[in-house]
Amino acid sequence: MDLYEDMADARQYLTIDGTFGMVRGQISDPVIAYETWGTLNEKADNAVLIFTGLSPSAHAASSSTDPSTGWWEDMVGPGKPIDTKRYFVVCFNSLGSCFGSTGPASINPGTGEKYRLDFPVLCIEDIAKAGNYLLAELGVEVVDTLVGSSMGGMTALAYTLLFPGTALRLLSCSSAARCQPFSIALRSLQRELIRKDPKWRNGQYPDDAPPEDGMLLARKLGMITYRSAEEWDQRFGRERATDDISSGTAGPFGIDFEIESYLDAHGRKFIGTFDANCYLYLSRAMDLFDASDHGGSIDKALTLTGLQSAHVIGVRSDFLFPPQRQQELAAGLEAGGVKVQFQLLDSIQGHDSFLIDMDRFRPAIAAFF
Amino acid sequence: MDLYEDMADARQYLTIDGTFGMVRGQISDPVIAYETWGTLNEKADNAVLIFTGLSPSAHAASSSTDPSTGWWEDMVGPGKPIDTKRYFVVCFNSLGSCFGSTGPASINPGTGEKYRLDFPVLCIEDIAKAGNYLLAELGVEVVDTLVGSSMGGMTALAYTLLFPGTALRLLSCSSAARCQPFSIALRSLQRELIRKDPKWRNGQYPDDAPPEDGMLLARKLGMITYRSAEEWDQRFGRERATDDISSGTAGPFGIDFEIESYLDAHGRKFIGTFDANCYLYLSRAMDLFDASDHGGSIDKALTLTGLQSAHVIGVRSDFLFPPQRQQELAAGLEAGGVKVQFQLLDSIQGHDSFLIDMDRFRPAIAAFF
Repeated sequence: MDLYEDMADARQYLTIDGTFGMVRGQISDPVIAYETWGTLNEKADNAVLIFTGLSPSAHAASSSTDPSTGWWEDMVGPGKPIDTKRYFVVCFNSLGSCFGSTGPASINPGTGEKYRLDFPVLCIEDIAKAGNYLLAELGVEVVDTLVGSSMGGMTALAYTLLFPGTALRLLSCSSAARCQPFSIALRSLQRELIRKDPKWRNGQYPDDAPPEDGMLLARKLGMITYRSAEEWDQRFGRERATDDISSGTAGPFGIDFEIESYLDAHGRKFIGTFDANCYLYLSRAMDLFDASDHGGSIDKALTLTGLQSAHVIGVRSDFLFPPQRQQELAAGLEAGGVKVQFQLLDSIQGHDSFLIDMDRFRPAIAAFF
Repeated sequence: MDLYEDMADARQYLTIDGTFGMVRGQISDPVIAYETWGTLNEKADNAVLIFTGLSPSAHAASSSTDPSTGWWEDMVGPGKPIDTKRYFVVCFNSLGSCFGSTGPASINPGTGEKYRLDFPVLCIEDIAKAGNYLLAELGVEVVDTLVGSSMGGMTALAYTLLFPGTALRLLSCSSAARCQPFSIALRSLQRELIRKDPKWRNGQYPDDAPPEDGMLLARKLGMITYRSAEEWDQRFGRERATDDISSGTAGPFGIDFEIESYLDAHGRKFIGTFDANCYLYLSRAMDLFDASDHGGSIDKALTLTGLQSAHVIGVRSDFLFPPQRQQELAAGLEAGGVKVQFQLLDSIQGHDSFLIDMDRFRPAIAAFF
């Protein structure tokens, strides 16, 4: 499954030959889809590896071979905060995802069928390990900076715990060393919305009949939790989508307000672009990740990274990865001897701010680099 | 449909004979189920009317005829903050609900069939009007205090706008003069979860096959939004429900953590106790309510209540009826000449605090009375 195939010109593929050991199982010959920008210098010490959040592909930014806009276009490029004139920047599609890397929607070479639910339980550490393979393949032994936002920040942290001392710096945006029950509950409910769709069929849905209703509902819940009340007050207020109060649009109890219309329209754009089983695996991986699995406690784990410095950025209006989680990560790293800069930004776009509020994130990240 | 019949000993019924005009339609001979505590004095000036949130029945507190615990047991009774030795306290089941009052699950006398989606669009004002009928029937022309929490606070406010000057005091807990897009989005999604359940059948589900999956999902989302992250951090943390990480309990992507187990168990208690169509009507009524419909603007509307005094209580951790909404209500009433006391409590139980955090709400409400 490769939904972005038509605009994947800059995409490259690494096949990891043989058995790839995951935390909770193994797979054969996984593929990692990645893109690079800039040039690795002779000392091979100018690499930056970007780990993505749950849903992006490796296409963080445009390039001459793929001029389409990337998901972090404002941040990555020549002269941009992550400056591709200076750094060799790598971004890869997470193991378990569906944009070229191996995941539940990929063919299991052992059976010739899609993995679906036969894919092993995915852990954030597995994605980190794939990233480490990739860097080794590209000739990078010690990476200058690991960058990760949301799930990607967890993966970056996992990388430092699995391969301590092989990364000099960490830039964590709106992430956490572990998630707490509020965000677990929301993600768990998103997964249940997909599982309860009769079309999910316990993961065995055909390619042409995926659980679109469940994906739409899960995406809507995601969109609600990725933003903030304050932003929506400003953008939508109580603006109505229809003056017909008799039943709303789209049948009884359909859409009354603009906010409902917005969520529906944007939710529908998402379905069909992401595989439902991949979503389930990646979502659960976030819940399962707990840095304290490395060392017995969060405090202990965060002394084991071997990092020289870290920049932890969070957003006050983010209730999915709230300020307390940023504080926990920053304080733990600092106590572990890492030189830490900690910033809580006043963005009102909630968890998604790192994708949207460039006026605040661009200078913060530029200052780090 | 009267699911609480077996413990409805204290329940009384008022039938409003003839046509009952609603904001957006009319119904015939509606019934209002209510309970009372204490005695109306000779001057009939010691009445307190309690409007409920979305889901409670009229059984706010126990009594000699119905000793079962009420939903606000700590607040209503002899010597309690709403002191039934001093006040004649009335609570009724909202029009549109399913605990004895007429709603979508009731028989339409015109057809002999359940109303279901033939029930007119329900507005908060309709519930307020039913409450006014009830008080008149009980011999109360001017009510000492209207009390309402969550949706009930909206109804109490609507009462003052429909019948200005007939209520002296308002006690509003965790409510609002109108809701904003964040809470609308969440309630809209809850309704969609019910509507997407194939068993909803466009409202025509049989009594023995209601849309239980949809109700469970909607209830889970409700529970997540009624509480706060901080409370769950303290109660659940990352405690696991199972050590078997292979697939969670309850099949693939089932329950991993205690918080998921808690939501599932409590959600299941709710389904079967509330009619799905009633839920849809009441939920949408909250979205549609906007005090500014009375007078053209919020500021103007809040000058029209005829109240002497009001106590507006909110909770800092409530993101469904957040502090800004409390502030808007309190400031508007005050600007309208009402003597206002405004309190933001530090409860960590979110929107549900008024049902749980008695250590903070009891003294606040006792001080008002």
